[in-house]
Amino acid sequence: MSLTCGVDVGGTKILGGVVDEHGNVVEELRVVSPATDVAAIEDAITRLVTELASRHEVSAVGVGAAGYIDKSRSVVMFAPNLAWRDLDLRSELEARVSLPVVVENDANAAAWGEFRFGGGADVDDLLLVTVGTGVGGGVVLDGQLHRGAFGVGGEIGHMRVVPDGVLCGCGNHGCLESYGSGTALVREARAAAAGGSLLARTLLDRASGDAAAINGPMITECAQQGDPFCIEQLAALGRWLGEGVASLVAVLDPAVVVVGGGVSAAGDLLLEPIRAAFARELTGRGHRPLAEVRPARLGNRAGLIGAADLARYR
Amino acid sequence: MSLTCGVDVGGTKILGGVVDEHGNVVEELRVVSPATDVAAIEDAITRLVTELASRHEVSAVGVGAAGYIDKSRSVVMFAPNLAWRDLDLRSELEARVSLPVVVENDANAAAWGEFRFGGGADVDDLLLVTVGTGVGGGVVLDGQLHRGAFGVGGEIGHMRVVPDGVLCGCGNHGCLESYGSGTALVREARAAAAGGSLLARTLLDRASGDAAAINGPMITECAQQGDPFCIEQLAALGRWLGEGVASLVAVLDPAVVVVGGGVSAAGDLLLEPIRAAFARELTGRGHRPLAEVRPARLGNRAGLIGAADLARYR
Amino acid sequence: MSLTCGVDVGGTKILGGVVDEHGNVVEELRVVSPATDVAAIEDAITRLVTELASRHEVSAVGVGAAGYIDKSRSVVMFAPNLAWRDLDLRSELEARVSLPVVVENDANAAAWGEFRFGGGADVDDLLLVTVGTGVGGGVVLDGQLHRGAFGVGGEIGHMRVVPDGVLCGCGNHGCLESYGSGTALVREARAAAAGGSLLARTLLDRASGDAAAINGPMITECAQQGDPFCIEQLAALGRWLGEGVASLVAVLDPAVVVVGGGVSAAGDLLLEPIRAAFARELTGRGHRPLAEVRPARLGNRAGLIGAADLARYR
Amino acid sequence: MSLTCGVDVGGTKILGGVVDEHGNVVEELRVVSPATDVAAIEDAITRLVTELASRHEVSAVGVGAAGYIDKSRSVVMFAPNLAWRDLDLRSELEARVSLPVVVENDANAAAWGEFRFGGGADVDDLLLVTVGTGVGGGVVLDGQLHRGAFGVGGEIGHMRVVPDGVLCGCGNHGCLESYGSGTALVREARAAAAGGSLLARTLLDRASGDAAAINGPMITECAQQGDPFCIEQLAALGRWLGEGVASLVAVLDPAVVVVGGGVSAAGDLLLEPIRAAFARELTGRGHRPLAEVRPARLGNRAGLIGAADLARYR
Repeated sequence: MSLTCGVDVGGTKILGGVVDEHGNVVEELRVVSPATDVAAIEDAITRLVTELASRHEVSAVGVGAAGYIDKSRSVVMFAPNLAWRDLDLRSELEARVSLPVVVENDANAAAWGEFRFGGGADVDDLLLVTVGTGVGGGVVLDGQLHRGAFGVGGEIGHMRVVPDGVLCGCGNHGCLESYGSGTALVREARAAAAGGSLLARTLLDRASGDAAAINGPMITECAQQGDPFCIEQLAALGRWLGEGVASLVAVLDPAVVVVGGGVSAAGDLLLEPIRAAFARELTGRGHRPLAEVRPARLGNRAGLIGAADLARYR
Repeated sequence: MSLTCGVDVGGTKILGGVVDEHGNVVEELRVVSPATDVAAIEDAITRLVTELASRHEVSAVGVGAAGYIDKSRSVVMFAPNLAWRDLDLRSELEARVSLPVVVENDANAAAWGEFRFGGGADVDDLLLVTVGTGVGGGVVLDGQLHRGAFGVGGEIGHMRVVPDGVLCGCGNHGCLESYGSGTALVREARAAAAGGSLLARTLLDRASGDAAAINGPMITECAQQGDPFCIEQLAALGRWLGEGVASLVAVLDPAVVVVGGGVSAAGDLLLEPIRAAFARELTGRGHRPLAEVRPARLGNRAGLIGAADLARYR
Repeated sequence: MSLTCGVDVGGTKILGGVVDEHGNVVEELRVVSPATDVAAIEDAITRLVTELASRHEVSAVGVGAAGYIDKSRSVVMFAPNLAWRDLDLRSELEARVSLPVVVENDANAAAWGEFRFGGGADVDDLLLVTVGTGVGGGVVLDGQLHRGAFGVGGEIGHMRVVPDGVLCGCGNHGCLESYGSGTALVREARAAAAGGSLLARTLLDRASGDAAAINGPMITECAQQGDPFCIEQLAALGRWLGEGVASLVAVLDPAVVVVGGGVSAAGDLLLEPIRAAFARELTGRGHRPLAEVRPARLGNRAGLIGAADLARYR
Repeated sequence: MSLTCGVDVGGTKILGGVVDEHGNVVEELRVVSPATDVAAIEDAITRLVTELASRHEVSAVGVGAAGYIDKSRSVVMFAPNLAWRDLDLRSELEARVSLPVVVENDANAAAWGEFRFGGGADVDDLLLVTVGTGVGGGVVLDGQLHRGAFGVGGEIGHMRVVPDGVLCGCGNHGCLESYGSGTALVREARAAAAGGSLLARTLLDRASGDAAAINGPMITECAQQGDPFCIEQLAALGRWLGEGVASLVAVLDPAVVVVGGGVSAAGDLLLEPIRAAFARELTGRGHRPLAEVRPARLGNRAGLIGAADLARYR
């Protein structure tokens, strides 16, 4: 059995795990992420890897992190939610853990995980769409992870879908992320509830009458219990995502579109509207195969598993 | 010297040529395209290849055609401007010309041509944007032509840029092609002239007072002679294209964006607005390298040269 | 009993009638409109009025016509579908029929008709929305017909609702008329049917398989018989109209919105979506009274009746 | 000489004045507005009026306030920035100051002021557009202030100009106010500066390097000193406003459009782009008179003067 270590560095937690060559997680650890302290994050990763390596014979480490990672899979050029700027994370970590390290964008790592062991294990070309706080993505083409000329490809959440539209955290207007993310889901539901919409009553009750307390899981739960307002909110999200996927598929032509991220826990309440909008909007529909839209299968371990597997390829 | 034959099948003409391994065109022939007659197009291609092969020792034939070509590079599934539907063009032609044949989407072939011998010869990752009657595209990633899981990728002209926008020939609303193509350029200029805009006076005079007679070359010529209206029309086209390129670069992360097609004859009058809008709209600008936007170098021979070169790889 | 004569001049027919002071039509005549021949239209109106006046004692004539009518209610400045340009129609007709004449925009006349005797007879402030080939409108405020400083107000169909949207017949992009008219209804249904949408199958069958033969009444009939596709097409039209009405009500604050025109024959299949979108989009909803959205009551006689009544006020 | 008292109640200050029948302000007082304390605002208005009335013989009081005022000009139904809800302000104040009182929406009062004594004194039909924190408006038609069936007309800032656009304070997406207000001006400039745009460098320097400190007057000053970025920011605002005015003029057909509000201090840097966009977008341009776009003439006293004059009409 060949083992590697995968680490998924998020803004709130760091997840580490030992993964075998079939994508099975042998052991998993989780620590809180000291996101704003550069040295502390590296310390935390180092401790986590060292502890796992003390109990398992791991041959390499793969680290997934949100941000722009350079083409050599070493330098974090920019990480919106972490304090890293132009940091050679690979060299720093290799010196500390005495193991080969590769660094990868977290959504890319997740796409690779789903491609190797999850929702896209049967195809060569996959588009992963992660619907969480933001909208992220990863692309596998002809069996290769697509990283781009500078290592920063796959930012599907920042395709513009509405000119002069809702302001995005990236500074632009009208990005897909501004309409298809969990943040957008909550923003619209809160606005409806705060505006006194009678339709949002059930949801507002769930939040004890405080519109600002509404969150994504509440919306999903209400929808799963049949609340028409919450069902429609998820459907509206799905329509934006499906229309965005139609544009992406026109360009990328993947065999499958895998939908993951926290909001995808809503299941078919999100997936069916994505499928319907995608099928309705895809250019040339009827004259071409229709990519299948599937749920992700690795849940929130996709990044960890993908990063661990990517560490095998150097 | 190793020679192959390239054929570029358009809606109005068929271009054939003998190309060496450095992308040089040794001989070129052109015939009118009998677009609506399936048998006649094949006859025309056959005659053209046969004549070229009678004078040069060619080892294979590459055919570029507008349409959806299947992954095996054999079957034309759908061609919007030709009469072909689910036609195994490769087998038909191989039987007729007794040479190995590959069939490729024309924009893909052009992208490959520019990648190998033109505007992208120095990089591994290229996005070609062709601005002609429509907006087409081709993508080269890590030195490989990106064809997609089903062979129909790279349709960048049908990314949606305006929800509920201008109706596109593909049946959708708001495609990039509806705003960034030569057709869009002429449509807007004609509308302004027909509406009596004083600004469009110079252009309308060039068209002898008949708004319906305005065409793309007229607009480019007037712009090159300094007419502010036509300069602004090309700039508006460039803004749409540059904003579209910003979305595409977020997803694809190419090293260079090469702009070709008939309208690119306008040179910097089109390229500079593309560059400005791209630089202004690219997500993460300032934290990542900025892909260079360059003119295509092979002109209208890009498809022919690319198809001929693709015939070498089977 | 006091009688006046009303004339409604359309692009395809001219409708004339004798109307009493309660809005009852005593006699009605209809002739084909010779739209492109200036003299012939005037001849036709003259014959029609002369015939009616020979059988009834009418004291004045009101003429409603599509176009820009000057503030003095005399001169047709511009009529998009008729050959009139800067024509003093009032003087011409008065000389011919030897009766006082007033000329009014046809949608304004219809608004006045509905205000006096139809859907707005109980209020002082009314917005009429006519949904036919185009989207027209008329506004009554504080019991007065709103004509504007130059006589050309009430053109609600040319409020822009989508920047860079569908091209409108007026030369602009994204007018309400481009999304909410019968023309838009038919355009979208034909596009779906021509594109092979399975959903449009029932409608396409009704049109004997010819997408270009689809017309508005077919869509309404299919919808009334329960066809989900046609119901949705009318609902989509209603959403655009209701959202447009929300903008107009923010500016005009009428007591009622009356919906007329040929497409309003669809009844609640159109009105309910208008009401829902209006209630959802009106700014300040919850803090202000909600204008009632009602069907027109005078049908295609609204213009005739309104014009006849307006002739009483000079 | 006949005198009345005008009061303009804003979110940050209350302005009171004694005005003669020619619109001249004889005396003016200003106090800080205790916006969140219902009783305190009324106390402040009472003190202010009592003091003015002690020195001048005033016959009536007109109060302008931001919010929905009922048709009887008495009840404040809703005021977004003040604590008033369904308050019979007229009765409360009449009891306190022992003078006849009328209450009016502040933008309506300003429109009336400009109509009687300012930018629209020579016409019968005027649209006032106030560009301040929000976009407000007032409409005078045929010499009458247009208040609407429920007293809440003239809310031009909440006409939707971008479907799914920027979130507005009113809870809707894409209102004109979200694109054409001083708030929008500052939001976009801050975003550009915060994003590191080199173009925004001069403006950022003026704000001592703190993007969040950028405000409207800074932008106007930089623009007036020739800074291209700030000129373009005002021009972009003007384009949105001019395009919105084109929609409004299609509906309302005023003789003049008067532009006031704090941002209008930018003068032609704002007005010229408004005029250009309006002339470019007005439906039927060329076949109708073009309303003149003029600066307001009463500055920030327009509301006070208009309210004082409206108090004469009961």
